[in-house]
Amino acid sequence: MPVILDATQPDFEAQFTTLLGAKREDAADVDEIVAAIIDNVRQRGDDALIALTAKFDRLALTPDTLRFSDQEIAMHCAAVPSHERAALELAADRIRAYHEKQMPEDAFWEDASGARLGWRFTPVSAAGLYVPGGLASYPSSVLMNAIPAKVAGVNRLAVTCPTPDGTVNPLVILAAHLSGVDEIYRVGGAQAIAALAYGTASIAPVDKITGPGNAFVAAAKRRVFGRVGIDMIAGPSEILVIADGDNDPDWIALDMLSQAEHDESAQSILVTDSPAMARAVQVAIDRNLQTLERRAIAGASWRDYGAIITVPDLSTAAALSNRVAPEHLELCVADPMKLAEEITHAGAIFLGAWTPEAIGDYVGGPNHVLPTARSARFSSGLNVLDFLKRTTLAQMTPEALRQIGPAAETLAISESLEAHGLSVRARLNRLNEL
Amino acid sequence: MPVILDATQPDFEAQFTTLLGAKREDAADVDEIVAAIIDNVRQRGDDALIALTAKFDRLALTPDTLRFSDQEIAMHCAAVPSHERAALELAADRIRAYHEKQMPEDAFWEDASGARLGWRFTPVSAAGLYVPGGLASYPSSVLMNAIPAKVAGVNRLAVTCPTPDGTVNPLVILAAHLSGVDEIYRVGGAQAIAALAYGTASIAPVDKITGPGNAFVAAAKRRVFGRVGIDMIAGPSEILVIADGDNDPDWIALDMLSQAEHDESAQSILVTDSPAMARAVQVAIDRNLQTLERRAIAGASWRDYGAIITVPDLSTAAALSNRVAPEHLELCVADPMKLAEEITHAGAIFLGAWTPEAIGDYVGGPNHVLPTARSARFSSGLNVLDFLKRTTLAQMTPEALRQIGPAAETLAISESLEAHGLSVRARLNRLNEL
Repeated sequence: MPVILDATQPDFEAQFTTLLGAKREDAADVDEIVAAIIDNVRQRGDDALIALTAKFDRLALTPDTLRFSDQEIAMHCAAVPSHERAALELAADRIRAYHEKQMPEDAFWEDASGARLGWRFTPVSAAGLYVPGGLASYPSSVLMNAIPAKVAGVNRLAVTCPTPDGTVNPLVILAAHLSGVDEIYRVGGAQAIAALAYGTASIAPVDKITGPGNAFVAAAKRRVFGRVGIDMIAGPSEILVIADGDNDPDWIALDMLSQAEHDESAQSILVTDSPAMARAVQVAIDRNLQTLERRAIAGASWRDYGAIITVPDLSTAAALSNRVAPEHLELCVADPMKLAEEITHAGAIFLGAWTPEAIGDYVGGPNHVLPTARSARFSSGLNVLDFLKRTTLAQMTPEALRQIGPAAETLAISESLEAHGLSVRARLNRLNEL
Repeated sequence: MPVILDATQPDFEAQFTTLLGAKREDAADVDEIVAAIIDNVRQRGDDALIALTAKFDRLALTPDTLRFSDQEIAMHCAAVPSHERAALELAADRIRAYHEKQMPEDAFWEDASGARLGWRFTPVSAAGLYVPGGLASYPSSVLMNAIPAKVAGVNRLAVTCPTPDGTVNPLVILAAHLSGVDEIYRVGGAQAIAALAYGTASIAPVDKITGPGNAFVAAAKRRVFGRVGIDMIAGPSEILVIADGDNDPDWIALDMLSQAEHDESAQSILVTDSPAMARAVQVAIDRNLQTLERRAIAGASWRDYGAIITVPDLSTAAALSNRVAPEHLELCVADPMKLAEEITHAGAIFLGAWTPEAIGDYVGGPNHVLPTARSARFSSGLNVLDFLKRTTLAQMTPEALRQIGPAAETLAISESLEAHGLSVRARLNRLNEL
């Protein structure tokens, strides 16, 4: 049974704290296995990739077939039915347009001392995108990872995607093609991450790795972090819906189930100021669970982690939501933009009942790679800045150095860094000679 | 002896690759000790902090003296000589002015479908700043970490700084005070990181932890990553100077030594198109090493990791620098801004010979917390975005949903996520009824 709470009850705080602290995922300890796989790939390169792919994916590769050829890519793209291609193209166009708006500006200005200061953004040179195979092989995630990289200007974008028993999802190949991906390799698991981080004869190393994966992939990403950049380690996903009494309970129920159907560890929380809506959504969820294809998964998620919370007013709802810091937040209320101003922590906000979360998963434009497990308190969804770095710029004039150099010298001396001070003093002495 | 290379020699590529790959730091394996300390603090809270501080810092604390009182802070601030206070204030003002320019804009726009899209930036609620005690207790680093947090709007900023044997650096306290730090605790090591991440009776937990520290602190940050955000794990520091023949070799030598004096693992590299300058800088370094206070450290760094590379032209210098991706890059050339356009990876660029790197450490304005050990290939120096998160916004109208909803439904079905499709379909059906 999902948790049913009333924010006005005396035991609410204790129960809500329990809900917040619920551990929804036990990370399997695969660290030793992953370390061995990474060492194997570093030492044996392509040979290791081929052996591990034969073992885990039951697929015989050679150095020549590790990578999808242009002909294979064209063949798989052509296999996608036209209505699916059109949907992917619409999604890609909208995601690209949204992320293009995120491109930051360079800056360079002169301050009162005459010093010129600023910064320049430059893209990561090469990025790798991990795409899971099998059940969780989502073409939409290819778009969401690859398009921001290409918008940022990443020159070389490599995809690794396992093809167990040779099975290829043509939509994944088409999504990569539409996103401008440069290389696609049929390897997966920790071995793919190792290849991207360290390189092999067939796969050149990259500077940054993004994309979701299982426990092995996540452990491998943690392990190569520092040698390359990585995106966040994704945890179980969640949605919080704030709904007033003026909603179709069936819409709310389907939005909550669209989170629950992802994963038994997913979490769906409804917060409402209407006890009648709370009851109606619960009934609608139970009804939909009877027929949903993924009812085993969605039912387990709802039973173990679902929650319905009634609150006296919507500001209380916003405050509770901020404590959850949900990955996805729907504001199904009369004035969603006003309520959004009270939200301080959320990955993505869906404003109004005409904006189901599923729109954001596919075609809205914003990214669907979002901070999970309360990490929206301190991190953002994937965006173009993840594929850019800022180089700061500073240029002193002699006059600027005359004004601010002595303070630098003072601080260097106070920190017992003599050469720092001397490097400034040598210039100041020259100025005094001029 | 530092490495002396000539980019036109046939064995250059092999030697440069060796230089790039030199492992400058063996991270001590302190993971088990750190795990035990974190568990201890999680279970025993303040009692653990007090016991560990007695053990490591030889200092007897009580829950009442864990935190610096307002009176103690005022006393330490008053102890700072006025010329040092003035220098710190100048630095703080310049750092604040620079970082205020980094504040990103919120956005919200309507696209052709009528959908409204955008994002909002919100600050991290609470941040913790680790400040090392003892030798590497740098007030400038307090400014560089704390000011961007406060510019971003972080509401609560807590500093932890060990005070071995009760020794306090008044400049550190003043720097925290000038930066607007809200709380200062006299604890250090992995136990301080644990307290910031998990909280104790005396120290409320934070959402993000930044700041440098020793191997124990770094291991603790890695371990709490995910529960809280962290900044990068700092590695050994480096400078690369590109200098033409028209420079004072003593200035270049002092700039390189100001890197070398930080740490025996620091690296200083000169790249020049002038063989005469290469020789003159080498002589100037050797001469300055005879008298420098920290000559033992700087000499070891220069001997083990220093390098001088002669190149046929400055574009070759830029290309080599991009492969190093240095933390600090000085362009001591006639037209530094032009050469900067060829730089694709660097933490910070110092333009022209009047801009010694030490200016950037203290008073330039840009941050001195920069990506080390080649990580400028994929990451940026500390900046206000490290204390902000972006929440994406999407609002469909019925008409926008009519246009793009069917594509979302198609993709949901292709990914076998039925509830996702149904959540869109329920709204589309309503539209058809209207």
